[in-house]
Amino acid sequence: MQFAYDEPTERLRARLTTFLDEHVYPAEPVYASQTAERDDEWTTPPVVARLRSAAREAGLWNLFLPGEDGAGLTNLQYAPLAELTGRSPALAPAALNCAAPDTGNMELLSIFATAVQRAEWLDPLLDGRIRSAFAMTEPDVASSDARNIATTIRRDGDEYVISGRKWFITGALNPDCRLLIVLGVTDPDGAPHRRHSMVLVPRDTLGVEIRRGLHVFGYTDGTKGGHAEIVFDGARVPAGNLLGEEHGGFAMAQARLGPGRIHHCMRLIGMAERALDLMCRRALARTAFGRPVADQGVVREWIAESRVRIEQLRLLVLKTAWLMDTVGNQGAHTEIQAIKIATPSTVEWILDKAIQVHGAAGVSQDFPLAHLWASARTLRLADGPDEVHKRSLARRELARFTG
Amino acid sequence: MQFAYDEPTERLRARLTTFLDEHVYPAEPVYASQTAERDDEWTTPPVVARLRSAAREAGLWNLFLPGEDGAGLTNLQYAPLAELTGRSPALAPAALNCAAPDTGNMELLSIFATAVQRAEWLDPLLDGRIRSAFAMTEPDVASSDARNIATTIRRDGDEYVISGRKWFITGALNPDCRLLIVLGVTDPDGAPHRRHSMVLVPRDTLGVEIRRGLHVFGYTDGTKGGHAEIVFDGARVPAGNLLGEEHGGFAMAQARLGPGRIHHCMRLIGMAERALDLMCRRALARTAFGRPVADQGVVREWIAESRVRIEQLRLLVLKTAWLMDTVGNQGAHTEIQAIKIATPSTVEWILDKAIQVHGAAGVSQDFPLAHLWASARTLRLADGPDEVHKRSLARRELARFTG
Amino acid sequence: MQFAYDEPTERLRARLTTFLDEHVYPAEPVYASQTAERDDEWTTPPVVARLRSAAREAGLWNLFLPGEDGAGLTNLQYAPLAELTGRSPALAPAALNCAAPDTGNMELLSIFATAVQRAEWLDPLLDGRIRSAFAMTEPDVASSDARNIATTIRRDGDEYVISGRKWFITGALNPDCRLLIVLGVTDPDGAPHRRHSMVLVPRDTLGVEIRRGLHVFGYTDGTKGGHAEIVFDGARVPAGNLLGEEHGGFAMAQARLGPGRIHHCMRLIGMAERALDLMCRRALARTAFGRPVADQGVVREWIAESRVRIEQLRLLVLKTAWLMDTVGNQGAHTEIQAIKIATPSTVEWILDKAIQVHGAAGVSQDFPLAHLWASARTLRLADGPDEVHKRSLARRELARFTG
Amino acid sequence: MQFAYDEPTERLRARLTTFLDEHVYPAEPVYASQTAERDDEWTTPPVVARLRSAAREAGLWNLFLPGEDGAGLTNLQYAPLAELTGRSPALAPAALNCAAPDTGNMELLSIFATAVQRAEWLDPLLDGRIRSAFAMTEPDVASSDARNIATTIRRDGDEYVISGRKWFITGALNPDCRLLIVLGVTDPDGAPHRRHSMVLVPRDTLGVEIRRGLHVFGYTDGTKGGHAEIVFDGARVPAGNLLGEEHGGFAMAQARLGPGRIHHCMRLIGMAERALDLMCRRALARTAFGRPVADQGVVREWIAESRVRIEQLRLLVLKTAWLMDTVGNQGAHTEIQAIKIATPSTVEWILDKAIQVHGAAGVSQDFPLAHLWASARTLRLADGPDEVHKRSLARRELARFTG
Repeated sequence: MQFAYDEPTERLRARLTTFLDEHVYPAEPVYASQTAERDDEWTTPPVVARLRSAAREAGLWNLFLPGEDGAGLTNLQYAPLAELTGRSPALAPAALNCAAPDTGNMELLSIFATAVQRAEWLDPLLDGRIRSAFAMTEPDVASSDARNIATTIRRDGDEYVISGRKWFITGALNPDCRLLIVLGVTDPDGAPHRRHSMVLVPRDTLGVEIRRGLHVFGYTDGTKGGHAEIVFDGARVPAGNLLGEEHGGFAMAQARLGPGRIHHCMRLIGMAERALDLMCRRALARTAFGRPVADQGVVREWIAESRVRIEQLRLLVLKTAWLMDTVGNQGAHTEIQAIKIATPSTVEWILDKAIQVHGAAGVSQDFPLAHLWASARTLRLADGPDEVHKRSLARRELARFTG
Repeated sequence: MQFAYDEPTERLRARLTTFLDEHVYPAEPVYASQTAERDDEWTTPPVVARLRSAAREAGLWNLFLPGEDGAGLTNLQYAPLAELTGRSPALAPAALNCAAPDTGNMELLSIFATAVQRAEWLDPLLDGRIRSAFAMTEPDVASSDARNIATTIRRDGDEYVISGRKWFITGALNPDCRLLIVLGVTDPDGAPHRRHSMVLVPRDTLGVEIRRGLHVFGYTDGTKGGHAEIVFDGARVPAGNLLGEEHGGFAMAQARLGPGRIHHCMRLIGMAERALDLMCRRALARTAFGRPVADQGVVREWIAESRVRIEQLRLLVLKTAWLMDTVGNQGAHTEIQAIKIATPSTVEWILDKAIQVHGAAGVSQDFPLAHLWASARTLRLADGPDEVHKRSLARRELARFTG
Repeated sequence: MQFAYDEPTERLRARLTTFLDEHVYPAEPVYASQTAERDDEWTTPPVVARLRSAAREAGLWNLFLPGEDGAGLTNLQYAPLAELTGRSPALAPAALNCAAPDTGNMELLSIFATAVQRAEWLDPLLDGRIRSAFAMTEPDVASSDARNIATTIRRDGDEYVISGRKWFITGALNPDCRLLIVLGVTDPDGAPHRRHSMVLVPRDTLGVEIRRGLHVFGYTDGTKGGHAEIVFDGARVPAGNLLGEEHGGFAMAQARLGPGRIHHCMRLIGMAERALDLMCRRALARTAFGRPVADQGVVREWIAESRVRIEQLRLLVLKTAWLMDTVGNQGAHTEIQAIKIATPSTVEWILDKAIQVHGAAGVSQDFPLAHLWASARTLRLADGPDEVHKRSLARRELARFTG
Repeated sequence: MQFAYDEPTERLRARLTTFLDEHVYPAEPVYASQTAERDDEWTTPPVVARLRSAAREAGLWNLFLPGEDGAGLTNLQYAPLAELTGRSPALAPAALNCAAPDTGNMELLSIFATAVQRAEWLDPLLDGRIRSAFAMTEPDVASSDARNIATTIRRDGDEYVISGRKWFITGALNPDCRLLIVLGVTDPDGAPHRRHSMVLVPRDTLGVEIRRGLHVFGYTDGTKGGHAEIVFDGARVPAGNLLGEEHGGFAMAQARLGPGRIHHCMRLIGMAERALDLMCRRALARTAFGRPVADQGVVREWIAESRVRIEQLRLLVLKTAWLMDTVGNQGAHTEIQAIKIATPSTVEWILDKAIQVHGAAGVSQDFPLAHLWASARTLRLADGPDEVHKRSLARRELARFTG
C-alpha cells in the first residue's frame, strides 16, 4: 500500500495546474460576460473554443480515454486530473475534451463502434468538432433502474423505429450536438437485462423533437447544451446504427457508469477544493463585528471539517479507481456505489458552508458557488437517488451473513 | 395557556382557504405559462392583477396591517393567515397585497409618514396601484448590522443628496415599483444607533441607477421585481422626503424587522406544509422497485420528521407573535432571533427531502420545490447569517449567569 | 391562543422552585456520597426520605395525579411542574412522590382498582410507604407493540397463574417495591387488542424470581430500584387481583402511556435546562487558549441551538398536554407520538454538547451530565424505538391523501 | 499509488484473524462472567493471562513496537492489525501486549530509556509481567495543551520531588501497574515547549496517592485498571529516573501521540466493524411488524452509511500511517489531527445505530455496544476535545493563503 501518485500522473498534474493558472482561471470572467451576452441560451461562449486549442497544444486532450483512441491513462492516473478540472467545471472539462456526456459516449464508441460508426461519430468527437448526448433517463419511470426504460426501438426492415420520451438529456440543446445515443427496448419479452439496445440517432433525424430545457434550481445550464426533454415520435435510423450487440444495451449502460462515476466524483472533489479556497479567502478578507471572519470558531469548524471530509472522499474515489483498474467494474461494485453515496452529499455540505461564509454574494452569480451547489445537489439524484444506492449496498452487506 | 385560534382568526382562515382553493391554486399553471411568455423579465404576469381583484372582493386585503390603515389584526391573528399565503408564495401574498417588501414599507409609512407622504405613497400602496422597495443592504459590508451601512444621505439646502451602492433590493426592477425607501447615514459622527435616516426616493429620480438583478441560485425572481443592485450617484430628493425622525433610521429599521420576521417565518411554514403535501402525494403516486415510494422506511422517516418539525416551528412563531402583541418587540427579542435561527434551516431541510422524493423532477421547473428551496436557503442569509443571530442569542443566554 | 401559565400553575411553580433551591439542590451532594457508601446497590439513599417529608409539608405531593386522589391538576398544569422536577431527576420526582413508574401505576389504580385493591395498594403508594413496578416489556419480542406480549396469565380456579419473562422492569429491585402490575395474555384467541389483562402481583409471591439488574450504559440505576429481569414461573395470585376489565389490558396500557409521555418529556426538558445552565457556567468559568470558553464561536452556537430547541420542545409538549385535557388521549395521538420522537433525541443532543464543554469531567461522576445522557438516550428506545413512532406518524400523515 | 496490504501484513492479518476466532471470541463470555465475579473492581480477569500465553505462542506479541525491541513493523503494517484487535477491544489488545497505555510507554522507553531503566521497566513490560500508566492529564487545566500542565517536578539534590494532581490516568488502579510515567514542569521559566520533563515513578512511591477511579458513562473500566485520580504530594524519585532529556518532555509527549492516534483510530475502526456485524446479524434475526428488521429502509440506510463511512475512515488512517512512515510525525501533522477529528465521532455514530437496532438490549451489558460507545464518545475528548483539533487544523488551512 502506498499513497503517492506515480510519475506520469504527477507530470500531468503539474502541466494541468499550469494550464489552469495560465488559461482557465483568467478565462472565467470572459466566459461569464460572454454567457450573459449570448443571443442563444444553448450555445457555448466562444472562449471555450480558444481554450480547447490551447489544451490541445499543451498535450492535455482526451486524457479521460484509456487505450489507443485516447491518452492511455488508467482510471487511477486520470482521476486526479479529473479532480483538477473540477476546480473550474464550466470550462476545464470542456477545454480538455473531457466533459460529460461526451466522455461516456466516446468510451462506448471506442469499444463498440464499427469502422463506419467510428469514422462518422467517434473521430469528430475525439477531434472536438461535434458534441453528443446520451438519451437514457425518462420522465415517467424511476430512472434509477435501467430496466424500467420504456422507449421502444422497433426493427422495421432495414431500419429501427424509435418512440418514447426522454428528459434531462444533458447537452442535447447545444447546436453542436449532432449525435444522440438512445437506449430503448428492442425485445420486450427478453429477460430484464437483455431487453434493451443502443442506437445512434443523428439529432436532426425526422421524428426527433427537442421540446424544452429542464431547469436545475433555476439554472438552464445552457452553455453546456442544457438538459433536454426529447420526444421520439417514430424516428427512423438505418439498422446499421445499432451500437454493439442487440439487446445488450443494459450491460453497456452499466459499464458506461463506472468510469463516469469516478469522473463525476473527482470533479466534485475539485469543486470542493475550489470552494474551500474561496471560503478561506473570503473569511480572511472580510471583517464582521470587529474581527476577521476567519477568526470565528464556527467558520474554523467548517474549514476543518471540509478539509477532513475532502481527504476521506478523495482516498475513497482513488481506491475505487484502483479497483476498477485491477479487478474491474464488477469487483469495484460496492465502492462505485459508495462514492456515489458519499461524494455529492458531502460536497454539497462544503459548498453550503462556503456560500454561508460569502453571505448574500454566495447565492448570486458573482461567485460560482451557488451554481456548483446546484450541480452537486442534482447529483444526489442523477443515476438514481442516493437512497437506492444505499439500499443496494446494504443488501450486499447483509448478504455476508445470509450466505 | 391555550392553543386554539380565536374566532375571527378561524373565520379568516376558512375564507382564505376557500380563496386559495378557488382562485390561487387554479391560477398557478396560468402564472407559470404567462411567466415563460413574458417579454420583460421583471414584470408580474397579468393573472396576479385578476387575483388581486378577487381577493379584495373576498375581503382579504391588507390583512397584514394592524391599526386603521389595515385590517386591524394582531400579529397572532395575522400569523396563521400569512402561513396560508406561504402555500402559494409566488401568488397568494401578492394577491392579498401582503407581499414583502411592500408590507414592511406600508407599516413604516402607516406609522411615520406625514399627511403629504401618506397621500403620495401610502394610499396607492394600500390600494395596490404601485409597488415599492426597501434599500438597506449593501454589497461591501456585513449587512447583518445596520450600523455598518455606508450610503450617505447628506443635507444640502432643501434637499437630501444620496450616494452609495445597495444590492439585493427586492422588487426594485418591477416597472410598477415607484418608491424606494432608502436607509443611509445622515450623521456620521452620531452614536452608532443615531446615525441613519430614511428617505423616500422616487425610483425615477435622477442619479438612481438600477444596474442589474442579482440571481438567487439561478432564479432572477423577476416576477416579483428581482433583487436589484442600485447605485445612488448624488441622487437628490426634497427635504420633505425624510421619513420619520432624522437620525432615527436604525430604530425604525429594527422595528420593521419584527413583524417581517413573523411574516417570513409563517410563510416558510406554509411552504413546508405545501412541500409535505407534495411529498406525500408523490410518494403515494410513484412505484419503485415494486413498492409505492410511500412504503419506503426512509421516506416515512422524512414525512414524520417534517410533521414533527413543522409543529414545533409553528408554535414557536405563534408564541413570538403573541409576545410581540403583549410585551412588544423588545420583550420578544430572544424569540424573534429564535424563529430566524430555527425556521429557514428547518424548512430548507423539509424542502430538500420533498425534492429527493420527486427525483429529477424535484429540481426542475415542473414543481415549485426547487424555487421554494432557493428562497428558504437565502433566508438563512437575509437580515444577517444565522450564525450572527446565534451568537447574539447565546450572549443573552450567558448573561443570565454574569449578572 | 395564549401562552402564559395560569395562576395556580404559576403559584405552584414558584413554590416548587423554592423547594428545589432550599431542599433539593443542597441534597444532591449528600445523595451522591450516600449512594457511594450504600451496602446494597438497590436501595435509595436516606436523604430521599427526608426530602419526601419536606415536600409533603410544602404541599408538593402527588401533584401528578388528577382527580380527588391527587392534586387535581390538569395535564397542562402539571407539565411545567414535571419540567422543574427534571432539573434534579434523581431526587425531585421521588421527593414529590411523582416518580415513574409509581405515577403510572397510581393512575391505573386510581381509575380501575376495587375498594379492596385501593386499600391494599393505592393508599400506601399515595402515602409514599411502598413502591411499585410495571411489568410489561419482554426480552424476546419487539416491546414497541403491546400485542406482542407473550407472558401468559392463565385462570385456574380462583387464581391466576403467571408464566413468562420480563425485563427492564424499572424499580423492581428496590426493597421497598411491594407490587408488580403485570401485563400478560389471558385470552390467546381474542382479537389482538382484547387478549391481555393486568394483574396485581405482590413482589414476594412464590414463583416470582428477580434475576438481575440490567445496566444502562454502565449505570445500574440502583437508587431507583434498577431495571430488573424477572421470571414468572407459574406464580399464582387470587382472582381478585385482576385489575380492571379482563382482556382489557391493552387499552389500559395505552391509556397509561399518554400522561407518562408528557411527564417523561417535560422532565427531559428540565434536564436540558439544567444542562444548559451547567454548560453556560462552565463555559464562563474555564479558559482555554487564552480566552474564556464562553467566547468560542462553536460553544455559542451550541448554547443558542440548545435554547432554540428547548423552546420548541416545551411548546410542543405543552400543546400536547392541552390536547389531552381538551380532546383526550385519542385526539392527541399524533402529538403524543411527536413528543416521543422529538424530545429524547433533542435533549440527548443538548446533553452531548454540555458534556463536550465540560471536557473529561463531563463523562465522569463529578457532573450529572453523563448519567442524564444515558437516560435520554435510553428513552429513544423505551416504549418502542423512535423509528416505530415515526413510521406510525407517517402513516397517519399519508392517510390524509388516501381517504 | 496502490491499495493492497503487503505480504507480511496479509500473513499477520490471517494469523490474527485465526487467533481471534479460536481464542478471543470464545473467551468473551468467560471474561464477562469472571468480570462479574471479581472481588476487586480493578483486577483483570484471569482469562486474559491465558490469552496472553496463546498469543505469544502464536507469534502475535508486541506487534505494535517498531525496531528491534518489538516486531519491527511499520505503522502502515501494524495499523490493520490494530484494527483487528479493536474487534474485541477488552481482550485482544491486552492479549497481544498491545494495549494502551503500555504501548506508548514502551515506545517511550524503547527510545529514551537508559540501560538501567530498560532492565527495570522496559523488559518486564515487553515481557508482559507488569503494567504501566502515563500521568499527564490534569483536572484543573485544559488538557488539550500539554503546556498547561501544572504538576511540578523539582530537582532536590539527587532526587526529583513531584507535586500535583492528575486524573483520568488509565490503568493506574490495576494491581499489576508498577510504573507511572509522569509529565511535569521542571523549568517554569523555560520556553513553553521546554518546560516539562518525564520521570519514572514506581507506583508504590511514598507520596503517591491513588484517590479514586473516574467513571466513564457509568463504566469504571476496572478490568483495564480504571481511570485514576492521583495526587502527588512531594513524592520523591532518584534523579536517575528522569526519562530522556531534561525539559524535553513536551516534545516526547507529542511524539508519543502520533502512533497512539493511529492505534486508537484503527481499534475504533475495528469496533465499528464489529458493531456493523452485530447490527446486520440482529437485523436479520429479529422481526418487527411482520418483517425482518433488515428489510426496513431506515436500517438499510444505517448499514450502508456505516460501510461507506468505515471505508473512508480506514483509508484516511492508513494514509496517515504511511505518511508517518515516510515523512515522519511532523509531515503527517494535519492528517494526525484529521483522524482524531473524524474517527471517534464517526464510530460513535455507527455504534449509536447498532444500539438502536438492538433495542433496549443494546444499552445493556448483554451486548458490548454500549460500552464501546462510551469509549468512542470519550475519545472525542481525550487528548483535547475535537473542537481544539479542528481549530488548529483550520489555522493551517488558512495559512495557505496568508503566507
